[in-house]
This record gives sequence, C-alpha cells and structure tokens, in this order.
Amino acid sequence: MSLPTIAIIGGTGNLGSAIGWRLARAGYAITLGSRLAENAQTKATALGHGMTGASNAEAAAAGEIVIVAVPFSAQTATYAEIKPHVAGKIVVDTTVPLVPPKVMRVQLPPEGSAAALAAAALGDGVRMTSAFHNVAAHKLAQDIAIDCDILVFGDEKDARAEVVALADAIGLRGVHAGALVNSAAAEAMTSLLIFINKTYQVDGAGIAITGKLVPIS
Amino acid sequence: MSLPTIAIIGGTGNLGSAIGWRLARAGYAITLGSRLAENAQTKATALGHGMTGASNAEAAAAGEIVIVAVPFSAQTATYAEIKPHVAGKIVVDTTVPLVPPKVMRVQLPPEGSAAALAAAALGDGVRMTSAFHNVAAHKLAQDIAIDCDILVFGDEKDARAEVVALADAIGLRGVHAGALVNSAAAEAMTSLLIFINKTYQVDGAGIAITGKLVPIS
Repeated sequence: MSLPTIAIIGGTGNLGSAIGWRLARAGYAITLGSRLAENAQTKATALGHGMTGASNAEAAAAGEIVIVAVPFSAQTATYAEIKPHVAGKIVVDTTVPLVPPKVMRVQLPPEGSAAALAAAALGDGVRMTSAFHNVAAHKLAQDIAIDCDILVFGDEKDARAEVVALADAIGLRGVHAGALVNSAAAEAMTSLLIFINKTYQVDGAGIAITGKLVPIS
Repeated sequence: MSLPTIAIIGGTGNLGSAIGWRLARAGYAITLGSRLAENAQTKATALGHGMTGASNAEAAAAGEIVIVAVPFSAQTATYAEIKPHVAGKIVVDTTVPLVPPKVMRVQLPPEGSAAALAAAALGDGVRMTSAFHNVAAHKLAQDIAIDCDILVFGDEKDARAEVVALADAIGLRGVHAGALVNSAAAEAMTSLLIFINKTYQVDGAGIAITGKLVPIS
C-alpha cells in the first residue's frame, strides 16, 4: 500500500517543518504550505528529501492528509483558507491554545479546546483529528531519539489510526486517546510542560503513558 | 523536623485509603475521615500502622495537611463540611471531574477544573493545592513500585513543595506543575487514561514527564 501524501499547513513554522522533515525522511511525499508559496518553496528546498512548497490552499488541495501547524492566533484564518480543499480528508489539528504572555498557565478556550474550534471551523464532512501537542519542535527538528508519546484524538477510530501511524513513522509512539473532545487534556498539558521546562531546567519535557500497552489491531 | 500530621477526607474510599496507608508506612500520623466516624475507624484499624479514624470534620480539624479524596459528585458537600476546620492549612484536592456514564470523555466543569471549585468553596485563607489525579488507586493500595508522576498544582510554591514531598514519600515522583488553574490538565488526563486502559488493556496506565528534570531546592 502506498503512503498517503501529506500537506503541512504552516509548514515553515518550527513544528510544521520538523514534522514534514521527519515524514519526508520516512518516505512520505510532503507539501509544505505557507501563506506565501515562495516561503514554503524556500523551506522545502532547504529541508530536501523531495519536499515541495505551495500556498496553504494549494498544499491543502494536494494532501490526502492535512496537518495544520499554526499558532493559536492564526488558527481561525488558516482554517478559513483551507476549508474549500479538505472535504473528506483527515485533518490533523496541532494547535495549542497558548495565550501570551502567560503561556505557562492553562487557558483553554470557552469551546473546550482548539480542536473543537477547528472542527467547528471546518464543519461536517471532514475526518477531524488532533495530535502532536506535547512534543518539542526543536527536538523533532534534530535526528535524535525523542522520549515522548503522541496522544491522538478523534471521533473516528480509523482516522485516529492513520495519525497514530504517522507518529510511529517518525520515531515516536502514537497512542489512541479517545474522542476529539479529549484533546483538551493534551492541549492543556503543553502549558505545564513549558512550566516544567523552566522550573526544572529541562530541554523539552514531554509526556509518556506508563503501563504496559497491548498493541491494538 | 517532625512530619506534618495528615488528614484524609474520604479516607475510606479507594484513593484516600491507599494514600493514607502509604503515608502511614512512610511514618506520617494519619487520620482517616469519613461521613461516619465509625466507618473511618474500622478502615483505620484494618489498615494498621497507627492510623486513626474520625468524622470528616474531626479529621480535618486534626490534620496539618488535609487531603480530600472524594468523588466529584460529593465534592461540594464535603468542602462545606470541612471548611470551618482548614483555615491556614494546606488542602490537597484530588478530585477528578468524571461525569458518569461517559468517564472516558473529558468533561471539565465550566469553572475550569475541580480544583477551582474547591478553591471557590473554601475561599481565601487556605493554602490550596491539587494532586494525585493520575495514579491508579488499586496500584497505590499494593506494596509495589508504580511508574507514575504526581503533578502538583497550587499558586503558592511552598505549599506545592510540601505536597511534592508527600508524593515522594510514598514512592512516586512529585512534580511542580504550576498554578492551580493548571490542574485542569491533570484532571482531564484521567479520562484519557481510562480510555487507554480500556483500549490497550492496561492495568492502570499513568503518566510520566519525560526529559531530564534538575531537582529544585
């Protein structure tokens, strides 16, 4: 079975470019998206591994799975930009609702989570998931082992499984973590990790689920 | 320095009795509280290690640190019961806002967290913290090693540090995780852990913070 093609919206950012780079090295065809296609093309060329660059809308149209990696403040505008191009596709929201300057405080939106906002922005007909909230982007961007689980949320098990496979493919452990509403837990956890990084001088704390997990089919 | 005396409100429940038992074995003087003093006395006698039992109000009055381990549905009534007896004390809320029957879904209260509800119930003049959300009670009740970090929340660092010390004393790792508002992350995580237990056949999944944490003074 051939690998799905992947679009990374916000693909010039720290998280998006690192996920794209790791997926490209794992053999996936990657289109990085950015507000300006030229910036995405420059980034794609710099990172290599056959990646291409395009506008966010073009990238969304090209990808079979669409990963959205933009700051919380850009989330609404970004989803408006890609909405016409993602019908029927798996969309992976990675947004963490950090509200500067108090990024070490949990500040979930009234809607419950950034994932809920993403789902509302796209409406029905999209296979909405969320993931990649807790991994440090600067670690992902290096060719190193990372001890961090990727909690994957979504109301549809098969869509979650495809995102779990992406996490596994880039050397992390994807873990099914339930319905999209549960994304709040991982999104909130990021503020704690920033606090812990500062308090305990950690270079990119992450989280791991402990206990013996029996792989699911 | 002598160890603080500890009250466990809801001390006949699975989580409360297990925390009490582990703390008693670590040398702390423990008073288990329950709605009915007699039930608490019976439990204390059964668990041994010099524990005593009392009504929740009496236990709260006796403890220098007051740990509250009751179901979400009993939280409001319990705090009303102990409020007259906890002024100036460290109170450790362990409440997880699970709303049956959908306990695998994150359902945080409109106030943001159970810890926020506890703080509102007690008002000013209490050193409010929260912790022990993610550890499996049935594991705590056994004399076994447990791989689970205890995230400790509170607006006052010194109060948090005393709760971190309690977690360390019972063989877990206490971790400062920031302001009380951040409790939402650990409370929400419990629903995920229940989902993961079911999905991956885990006997009590927990969480661990990854990365190298430098101990703080």
